[in-house]
Amino acid sequence: MKKIINNPDDVVEENLQGMVLSNKYKIKRVEGFNVLARIDAPVKGKVGIVVGGGAGHDPLFTEFIGKGMADASVVGQIFAAPPPDQILAAIKAADSGNGVILLYNNYTGDVLNFNMAQDMAIDEGIKVDTVLINDDISSAPKDRREDRRGTTADHIIIHLAGAASEEGMSHRDLQKFLNKAIENSRSLGVSLSGCTLPGAQKPTFTLEEGKMEFGMGLHGEAGIKRVDLATADEIAITLLDYLIEDLPYLSGDEVLVIVNGYGSTTRMEMYIIARKIHSYLSSKGISIYNTDVGEFCTSMEMAGISITLVKLDKQIKKYYDLEADSPGYIQGGS
Amino acid sequence: MKKIINNPDDVVEENLQGMVLSNKYKIKRVEGFNVLARIDAPVKGKVGIVVGGGAGHDPLFTEFIGKGMADASVVGQIFAAPPPDQILAAIKAADSGNGVILLYNNYTGDVLNFNMAQDMAIDEGIKVDTVLINDDISSAPKDRREDRRGTTADHIIIHLAGAASEEGMSHRDLQKFLNKAIENSRSLGVSLSGCTLPGAQKPTFTLEEGKMEFGMGLHGEAGIKRVDLATADEIAITLLDYLIEDLPYLSGDEVLVIVNGYGSTTRMEMYIIARKIHSYLSSKGISIYNTDVGEFCTSMEMAGISITLVKLDKQIKKYYDLEADSPGYIQGGS
Repeated sequence: MKKIINNPDDVVEENLQGMVLSNKYKIKRVEGFNVLARIDAPVKGKVGIVVGGGAGHDPLFTEFIGKGMADASVVGQIFAAPPPDQILAAIKAADSGNGVILLYNNYTGDVLNFNMAQDMAIDEGIKVDTVLINDDISSAPKDRREDRRGTTADHIIIHLAGAASEEGMSHRDLQKFLNKAIENSRSLGVSLSGCTLPGAQKPTFTLEEGKMEFGMGLHGEAGIKRVDLATADEIAITLLDYLIEDLPYLSGDEVLVIVNGYGSTTRMEMYIIARKIHSYLSSKGISIYNTDVGEFCTSMEMAGISITLVKLDKQIKKYYDLEADSPGYIQGGS
Repeated sequence: MKKIINNPDDVVEENLQGMVLSNKYKIKRVEGFNVLARIDAPVKGKVGIVVGGGAGHDPLFTEFIGKGMADASVVGQIFAAPPPDQILAAIKAADSGNGVILLYNNYTGDVLNFNMAQDMAIDEGIKVDTVLINDDISSAPKDRREDRRGTTADHIIIHLAGAASEEGMSHRDLQKFLNKAIENSRSLGVSLSGCTLPGAQKPTFTLEEGKMEFGMGLHGEAGIKRVDLATADEIAITLLDYLIEDLPYLSGDEVLVIVNGYGSTTRMEMYIIARKIHSYLSSKGISIYNTDVGEFCTSMEMAGISITLVKLDKQIKKYYDLEADSPGYIQGGS
C-alpha cells in the first residue's frame, strides 16, 4: 500500500504539526503533548469537553475542537489509546475551573487510560466525569449495551456537548443530556476492504473481491456477517432494519441521519445510500430532520459506509441547531 | 473494484436525488434536468454564477452552490461534459435579470457545450459571459497557458465569484476579478493509483506498486513524469518547486494554500504534506494566509494529492474572507 508519509514512526506527530499550521486561527498545540485545544481554551464559565482516542480515524477526534465542539482533544498512536499523562494534559487545557467531561468511545484501552487520567485530575482538585459513547450495535447484543463500542455518532455527540456547555449547561445536566443523546443513537456499517497501517506491508484484514462485511469494527474487529456485495439500496435497507429494530425507532419519530464514509468511499456512493434512507424511513413513518453526509469517522483508507440514526427530541434539536466550528465539522444550524 | 451503487447507469441521477434530500434546506433540483440551484435562486440583484462539468469529482461541482458560492451547477455523466440544453437550464435558474457568468474548467468538451449554451441563452436575451479556469500547470507549457486545464483551484475561484457577486460586483468587474484570481492560481498533483468507473471491471489506468506520477490529470491524462514513490516531504518540495517557478511566486508574496485529496488519500497524509509546505514556503519568504485541507476536487477513489497556490492581493483576500455556505465547502472567513 502506497502512502504519502515520511518515517512511519512520525505520522502522528507530523499530522498534528500540519493540522495546527493549517488551522492557526482556530486551534493550538499544548506544548510537549499530543494534545490540541481550541485557540481560546480554557473558555471561562463553561464545562470543558475533552475528547480523544487512537489516531487513524481523521477527522475524528483531533479535528473536532472549536466553538460548539470539544475544547481539547488528545490522540494516541495509530489505533492505540492515548497514555494517561497525555489525557491529563488535555483535561488541564480544557478546564477553566468549571470542571471537565471526558467524552470518548467505549474501547477497553481508552477506558483504562482515561480512568487513570480522571483519577489523577481529581487528585489535583479538578472536577472530572466521564460519558462513554457506545452507538455501535454490532459490537454486543442489546442487553449488554454497556459493552458496545463507540463509532460514527461521535461528531454529533461532541457537537451536542460543545453547544450545550457553551450555553452554560451544568456539569450534572450535561452528563444526563449526553447520555440521553447517546442512548438515542445507533450506528452500523458495512466494509468492503481493509486498510494498511503506515509502514506495514499488508492490510489489517482482507475482504475478497465480491464480498462485504456488515458490522466490522474500525480496527478490523469481526462483524455480524460476511456476504456477497449487494446493491446500494439493499445495503441501506439491511443496515436500517438492524438499526430500527435495535432502539427501536418507531413511526412518528424524528431522526438525524449520518451517512459516514470510512475512507476511500466516494461522496457519490454516500449520497446514493442517503437517497434510499430517505425513502425507506419515510415508508416506516420516521421523518428526517437533517442528513450529515461525509467522512467523519474513518479507518484510514478502508472502503465502506456506516449509517447512524439519532432520535431527536426538543432538547437535542435545540443544541444540534447551534453553531459548530471546527476543522473537521462545521455547521451553522439547519 | 467494489462500489456501493445500484445500476451503474443510474449513479448520476441517484447521486443528485440523494444530494437534494440530504441538503433540503440549502439546495433544490431544477425539474427535468441534472441541474441543482441554491434554494433561493435566482437571487435578485446579483450576477448569477453557473458552474459545471462531468460527474465523478465530488464535491466539485455539484456541491459548490449556496451563499458565497455558485447559484447553479450542471453535471454531465461520469467524466463527460454536460449537454448544452442542460447548461441552458442552469443559466436560466441562475439569472435574476442581471446576467450570468459561466465558470468552469478548461476542457475541450466542456468549452464546446458551454459555448453552445451561451449562444442559446444570448438568443433568448440573457447576458452571458464565460470565465475559464486553467490552473493545472502540467497540462501545457507556460507560453500556452490558454490550453491548460482547470483543476483543484476550483472551490476557491467559485467562492470568490459567489462572494463578489453577492456583494453586488458588476458583470464586467467580475470577469476581470476572476481572471486575475485564476491568473494568480497554480496547481499540480501527484497520483498513486487510478480509479474505476462504475460498472467497469478495470481502473482507467494503473500505477505499479512503488510508483507515482506527477501531473496526471483527473481523468488519467498523462503527467509530467512517472517516478519511484518518494517521501511526503520530497513530494511537497517537488510540487512546490514546479509551482513557484511557474507564476513565479516570489519572496514577499502572500498566498492561500490548498492541499486537496484526490479520493482515497487520508487527511493524515494531507496534513503531513501541509506541514512541509509551511516550512518550505517560509524558507522562500512566501507567507501563508490560510490553508484549506480536504477533498475538494476528486477523481473518484484515486489516491494522491494536489497542491494549489493562490497569490493574494487586498481584493482577493477581501472576498475570500466572506462567508461560503455550500454542501461541499463551508467557511465563515478566517
